[in-house]
Amino acid sequence: MPDDRRLVFIIGGARSGKSAHAERLIEASPAPWIYVATGQAFDGEMEDRIAEHKARRDQRWRTIEAPLELATALRDVPDGEPVLVDCLTLWLSNQILAECDVGKESARLVEVLAAPRGPWFVVSNEVGLGIVPDNALARRFRDAAGRLNQEVAAVADEVLLMAAGLPIKVK
Amino acid sequence: MPDDRRLVFIIGGARSGKSAHAERLIEASPAPWIYVATGQAFDGEMEDRIAEHKARRDQRWRTIEAPLELATALRDVPDGEPVLVDCLTLWLSNQILAECDVGKESARLVEVLAAPRGPWFVVSNEVGLGIVPDNALARRFRDAAGRLNQEVAAVADEVLLMAAGLPIKVK
Amino acid sequence: MPDDRRLVFIIGGARSGKSAHAERLIEASPAPWIYVATGQAFDGEMEDRIAEHKARRDQRWRTIEAPLELATALRDVPDGEPVLVDCLTLWLSNQILAECDVGKESARLVEVLAAPRGPWFVVSNEVGLGIVPDNALARRFRDAAGRLNQEVAAVADEVLLMAAGLPIKVK
Repeated sequence: MPDDRRLVFIIGGARSGKSAHAERLIEASPAPWIYVATGQAFDGEMEDRIAEHKARRDQRWRTIEAPLELATALRDVPDGEPVLVDCLTLWLSNQILAECDVGKESARLVEVLAAPRGPWFVVSNEVGLGIVPDNALARRFRDAAGRLNQEVAAVADEVLLMAAGLPIKVK
Repeated sequence: MPDDRRLVFIIGGARSGKSAHAERLIEASPAPWIYVATGQAFDGEMEDRIAEHKARRDQRWRTIEAPLELATALRDVPDGEPVLVDCLTLWLSNQILAECDVGKESARLVEVLAAPRGPWFVVSNEVGLGIVPDNALARRFRDAAGRLNQEVAAVADEVLLMAAGLPIKVK
Repeated sequence: MPDDRRLVFIIGGARSGKSAHAERLIEASPAPWIYVATGQAFDGEMEDRIAEHKARRDQRWRTIEAPLELATALRDVPDGEPVLVDCLTLWLSNQILAECDVGKESARLVEVLAAPRGPWFVVSNEVGLGIVPDNALARRFRDAAGRLNQEVAAVADEVLLMAAGLPIKVK
């Protein structure tokens, strides 16, 4: 087993610099790096966002798409390889849209994240600091995201909250 | 008068683990503990949330319902007893719906909180970190909640901001 | 050139005490102080908010209105004078409404802020910690605000995140 086994959890708002910070952190470990993408491009706005993230990464990265089967994808990554998961909230959103059992799928994912087999960096959005949303689906998503973030933070070795591109060490 | 008199103020977003953390903190003081509930069940969603919170508490807790008369309820708790108020934003929301004088009621409440007579733990939501809400009532609530949080934090001995279930010490 | 040249960046949610804290900080430097206002009163609510902010300031303050030409206004302030800019998100909102080139104008502004010529205090809203907004303009504003906050934080000497009126030191 590799020596450097740890879970670093990076949370923050939209455009708070979560992904860029996670990339800076992972680059302290030797390449190649595995990028686990959970986003799906449903529209032009999302396509632009994915393209912008991709443009930052070069051939030292290997990309795995895991919009739904994230726990399985993580089980399959080689021991010791640095992994960046970007991001949990998109995965959760995909789970809800696909009408999966969110509680069960979250538990499966947290079980894998609790035993990282290398330096693993996981990005997630904090979405609970605004006014209560009008629509029930948004409230359900907000609750599920908050619960998942708590569960992942509980098993993480380090938790960072991003604000304006800067990390606040929470754990 | 008891020796352990202090106000601990726990703020955070939805599902950030505020209530659970406040419960862990109060359990460091000997039972019985007083739970001051401000929530009112208007619908099934709210009923579920209240039920979930209740399920965490056992017979060592005594519950007082104070959806509006929170200042009075706190004046009546016995000296030295640990108190958990959950939460200020629900109380504020009730005040606004009942068309009370929010400024005056907040001032009354803050006066009582400024002189805790035991270990008092107060939970509140941070709701001001999203986009400006479309509707005027939501903006008014957001402003009132922000002002109340500032006033309570100013008189608190300790202020914690919760993120993903973990406390950030602010004061 | 004056000795005390630094950029202090104060971010936070609505009613988190950003402006009041920035005013307390600037008052540690000798008066007169320059207040650079970016807000424009389009309606009664905004007028009230501006009036409330003005009521806190006395004749030791000189006010400059810069709803759009903020970079130019900052280039023109005398060397060594303490400056408070309140706030960047209103300026950004004005830029978007006036259909300016937000990327170019933000770059011009950041260039000036990167070379403060006295103790400069800049206030901005954090708006990205709620649910993804329904409408595209709000999402565009949220993205632009997040990017601008990151760019300003990167060149700032000190960054404070306000929560319930209290500062969390981020940088």
